[in-house]
Amino acid sequence: MRTPSDTQVIHAINANDTALDTPFLKCLMRLIRARDTYGTWEVKSDAALLAEFIVTKAQRRAIPIIGDPDPDVLWRLETFYACVALVIEERSGLLISSTLMMNHEGFGRVVLTTGRLVVLSKSLRDVHQFGFETLIKLAKAGAKLVADATAAIEVYPDVARA
Amino acid sequence: MRTPSDTQVIHAINANDTALDTPFLKCLMRLIRARDTYGTWEVKSDAALLAEFIVTKAQRRAIPIIGDPDPDVLWRLETFYACVALVIEERSGLLISSTLMMNHEGFGRVVLTTGRLVVLSKSLRDVHQFGFETLIKLAKAGAKLVADATAAIEVYPDVARA
Repeated sequence: MRTPSDTQVIHAINANDTALDTPFLKCLMRLIRARDTYGTWEVKSDAALLAEFIVTKAQRRAIPIIGDPDPDVLWRLETFYACVALVIEERSGLLISSTLMMNHEGFGRVVLTTGRLVVLSKSLRDVHQFGFETLIKLAKAGAKLVADATAAIEVYPDVARA
Repeated sequence: MRTPSDTQVIHAINANDTALDTPFLKCLMRLIRARDTYGTWEVKSDAALLAEFIVTKAQRRAIPIIGDPDPDVLWRLETFYACVALVIEERSGLLISSTLMMNHEGFGRVVLTTGRLVVLSKSLRDVHQFGFETLIKLAKAGAKLVADATAAIEVYPDVARA
């Protein structure tokens, strides 16, 4: 995984120290820890692990969008949408199916469904550069997708349970 | 691509010569021809191309389900579901989004959606052995998926257009 320097991590956190307490980032943290099969990240702080998701404008510009995306960025992308699905499940009490399709060039689609209802459908492009400028932007992006999905479930409750 | 012997092809066709006239196989044929970018299959008959989708019981037993699935079988699987989506579009007049996710071991999921409606959601397993015993079984399997999807659109017309 990309290992941001301590100063980078501290910078990302100092600016957004409340973000870590948002339900979305708490869930993301639990998910990342759960996926740490061999316990190699036990020594890392939550902030250091979440800092992997931070891509500043300057960093983004430096990432080429030709060639295959970094496997680590695909892992983070997949983890992000898995977290969105998990928080929707917590809110709605419904089981969410997650389908993420990606070609080797970094174009694809993610679809979250429950019953007969599409709760999220999103094209993915330039996933090489997947990341968020700050932790609070990461938390907000996740919360927005969860809110939209939850709203759709409220509009079509029968379809969601079909 | 797997190239069945002429006798295999003739056998598959003789037994099911009406299958080629079904709407599903006609569409599948058009799709396969459309995907023949370099015209290499122009010399092949429709029957010979569709015969690729035929896997007899004996053939199925001979295909190991360990190791990565053959890229050709993944191509056929993807083409089959693309054809299902295409026939649903013809029937309903709605645009279908197709998302097919597959891990390298041959497990995955296919989701077809339109608007907010899931018209088809299916787990995929043992795709190494993807195929149908006869052409008529291929045509029927496709037609069944199309019919189920069309029925769902009729039950939830607003969601399909949301």
